[in-house]
Amino acid sequence: MPAHGKGAHMSLKPVLDQIDSDLDAAMERLFDLLRIPSISTDPAFKGDVDRAADWLVSDLDSIGITATKRPTTGHPMVVGHVEGNGPHVLFYGHYDVQPVDPLELWDRDPFDPAIEETPKGRVIRARGASDDKGQLMTFVEACRAWKAVHGEMPCRITFFFEGEEESGSPSLIPFLKENADELKADIALICDTGLFESRAPAIMTQLRGLLGEEIVLTGPSKDLHSGMYGGAAMNPIRVMSRVLANLHDDTGRIQVPHFYDGVPDLPPEIKAQWDGLGFDYAGFLGDVGLSKPAGEQDHTALEMIWSRPTAEINGIKGGYTGDGFKTVLPSKVSAKVSFRLVGQQDPHALREHFREWVKTQLPEDVTAEFHAHGASPASQMSTDHPAFEQTRAVLGEEWGEEAAFTGCGGSIPVAGYFKTYLGLDTMLVGWGKDDDQIHSPNEKYDVESFHKGIRSWARILDAIR
Amino acid sequence: MPAHGKGAHMSLKPVLDQIDSDLDAAMERLFDLLRIPSISTDPAFKGDVDRAADWLVSDLDSIGITATKRPTTGHPMVVGHVEGNGPHVLFYGHYDVQPVDPLELWDRDPFDPAIEETPKGRVIRARGASDDKGQLMTFVEACRAWKAVHGEMPCRITFFFEGEEESGSPSLIPFLKENADELKADIALICDTGLFESRAPAIMTQLRGLLGEEIVLTGPSKDLHSGMYGGAAMNPIRVMSRVLANLHDDTGRIQVPHFYDGVPDLPPEIKAQWDGLGFDYAGFLGDVGLSKPAGEQDHTALEMIWSRPTAEINGIKGGYTGDGFKTVLPSKVSAKVSFRLVGQQDPHALREHFREWVKTQLPEDVTAEFHAHGASPASQMSTDHPAFEQTRAVLGEEWGEEAAFTGCGGSIPVAGYFKTYLGLDTMLVGWGKDDDQIHSPNEKYDVESFHKGIRSWARILDAIR
Repeated sequence: MPAHGKGAHMSLKPVLDQIDSDLDAAMERLFDLLRIPSISTDPAFKGDVDRAADWLVSDLDSIGITATKRPTTGHPMVVGHVEGNGPHVLFYGHYDVQPVDPLELWDRDPFDPAIEETPKGRVIRARGASDDKGQLMTFVEACRAWKAVHGEMPCRITFFFEGEEESGSPSLIPFLKENADELKADIALICDTGLFESRAPAIMTQLRGLLGEEIVLTGPSKDLHSGMYGGAAMNPIRVMSRVLANLHDDTGRIQVPHFYDGVPDLPPEIKAQWDGLGFDYAGFLGDVGLSKPAGEQDHTALEMIWSRPTAEINGIKGGYTGDGFKTVLPSKVSAKVSFRLVGQQDPHALREHFREWVKTQLPEDVTAEFHAHGASPASQMSTDHPAFEQTRAVLGEEWGEEAAFTGCGGSIPVAGYFKTYLGLDTMLVGWGKDDDQIHSPNEKYDVESFHKGIRSWARILDAIR
Repeated sequence: MPAHGKGAHMSLKPVLDQIDSDLDAAMERLFDLLRIPSISTDPAFKGDVDRAADWLVSDLDSIGITATKRPTTGHPMVVGHVEGNGPHVLFYGHYDVQPVDPLELWDRDPFDPAIEETPKGRVIRARGASDDKGQLMTFVEACRAWKAVHGEMPCRITFFFEGEEESGSPSLIPFLKENADELKADIALICDTGLFESRAPAIMTQLRGLLGEEIVLTGPSKDLHSGMYGGAAMNPIRVMSRVLANLHDDTGRIQVPHFYDGVPDLPPEIKAQWDGLGFDYAGFLGDVGLSKPAGEQDHTALEMIWSRPTAEINGIKGGYTGDGFKTVLPSKVSAKVSFRLVGQQDPHALREHFREWVKTQLPEDVTAEFHAHGASPASQMSTDHPAFEQTRAVLGEEWGEEAAFTGCGGSIPVAGYFKTYLGLDTMLVGWGKDDDQIHSPNEKYDVESFHKGIRSWARILDAIR
């Protein structure tokens, strides 16, 4: 844009026009990627995750970007480079997806994407449509349009795609350490977040961390008949219930010792800003059939999800869970528990406190095993880099609403790792909506999100170059 | 036996010899029945349950007994009649079996029976080997031997086989009501119990009842992302954990209101008899890796399983339970809970008390659905019929240890129904051992149980004719 003092020889307008006219082809490309069931948590899909990485290498190659699939001890990374002038951005997205169960709740094959007309507009329906293949491709398509119109990219870009985000990113830190020189840039861009209230563009500057733990309790050495042993043998589900019931007190406060170490009070000016956002509290819970915030009763729902830590039970299984009834007294029960972390909460210290706290509650005859599932601290972005204010300005132009700096209940640990291992600030922007059903059956991504998302990236690249 | 004043033309000795020489063939017949996966709780096996009924009709026919498969709204009953002199016994067994999961814990296909040599002797390994196909066939084989040797049965017999015992016998009461005249006899015999401490013959005269309930709790209307909603949305697993944790207080006492209505104190003379049995308390729990009785702390383990009511969680499932981790905040969680009942506890009243008690613990935003899974009161047998003492005497001869009148932690509701709907007293004898792993992976039945069981029934029929 000439107003930014950049040469008219690479103007934005024809790039946006190219994006508009190429939209159907861009969706076809996204569909190709969505058809690959790249579920990273399930070893059965290892070959598919690999195939998705190959697809990305080939797609980058089709716009003249040399990219390589880089092996790790888990799933591969994809790294590509575009040399050039101006600032150097590192773009990150993930090409793995969540599992699809319960499959019976899907209205169509999660890996057979389709455009569906809905009362709220056209959507792309598939696992990963929003999280994160569709979002990732908004950036790639913006680059494709820029290249098609101007024959080159507007700035220096490193593409960095991960295949393990949905399974705790076990290879990420080693990879960042080993390839720090190659991955260094001026700023990192991540497209894995959403619009504020599904309408206003948002730059997320505050993200929660995540700690995942699986507890397996064993009582009797084998499954027993509850007629023969019921009453006399300790049932591990009874013990697990007590442990999980003790996670929260009656006011929603989490009872693991030292849990609140490092949890900051919300600064009054941020609280005032959030209170002024006009957040639709009733709609937020009402959309999912609820009416009352379930967390710490001395905080608002927005504070609960943006600035307060949580403990959630993500899954539990033990004994007979099939049709009908079986009077078994089970040997084992397992539960998956995760904690969203804020401020300076230390996930590694907290894992130890949690395990110790569980163990102190076990009666004689019940033993616990623990399995670690990822640990990342919360992130608080610095917004000093000029890209933040530049981006805020152009996003307002694209979406017709002022962009806000917001918080986020989710965890995007990679932003923290970029700071720690590459020294990079990260700007998190994304086009997801609250009803995208990510991690749930019938995930979708609005065609509007995809289209305006591509246009937004074109604007951002133009603004920061 | 001449000593009983019965004719030498139908003496017992050649029948016992015939049983000994026919044992291998008898096991082959049992194997045929064990190969049919007649799992009554799982609709996928409906055809197999039916096939097991056909097999029994055909097997009874092979010893000259006219039997028919009788349709119900669920799985069929099999009824056969032998006319004759002397007392009229109604023999009951069930031909359906428990589900087999977790299948991966079986060392062989549960429906491919085999004789295995073990340190404790030869065993028949298969689902249903002990519960109840093997036990049921001990009676049939005794009749077959009697018929082979003497050309007729020693007394009048009605055979009555059920295919729904493991799924709460939904058709049993209607069938008993509709066919009460046809099923009437002098006494009922059931072979679905075990030896005392795997060694001494036992006639069970006290059985617990059973109430089964499934609770499904719903929080949010769909599965949510715990990053987006964690902290603010009520997690139904958290609520279920609290409900289940409240089932017992710290002393093991069950906290459902009115639960103990109708629970009698154990008469001192029975308590004295049980205390004198030399029950191996340490071994009973030690065999399954436990050390401390988990029930009401003011009762012995034998009292807990024979004379005290229980509440057990038989299964629980909610959220993501696959490999790896998924940060879902689930919409639903379900738990299967069963109660063993004693004395005059009323299962129907208790079901209502339980549901009410669960509902009072639910916060706003969480709703409960309940599914009923069977309700039978406890049974206390009258031992007035002379068959009880006659049987006690001949069992001692077969097993070399005095037979005892015992209690049982399990539930055999049919005994109560025979009293209510047919006016019959029931004599419960059986040859199972504590390590038969009924309802668990790797179920087995000792060849000794099968062989001596057949001989025992030959002796009992001889004694009571």
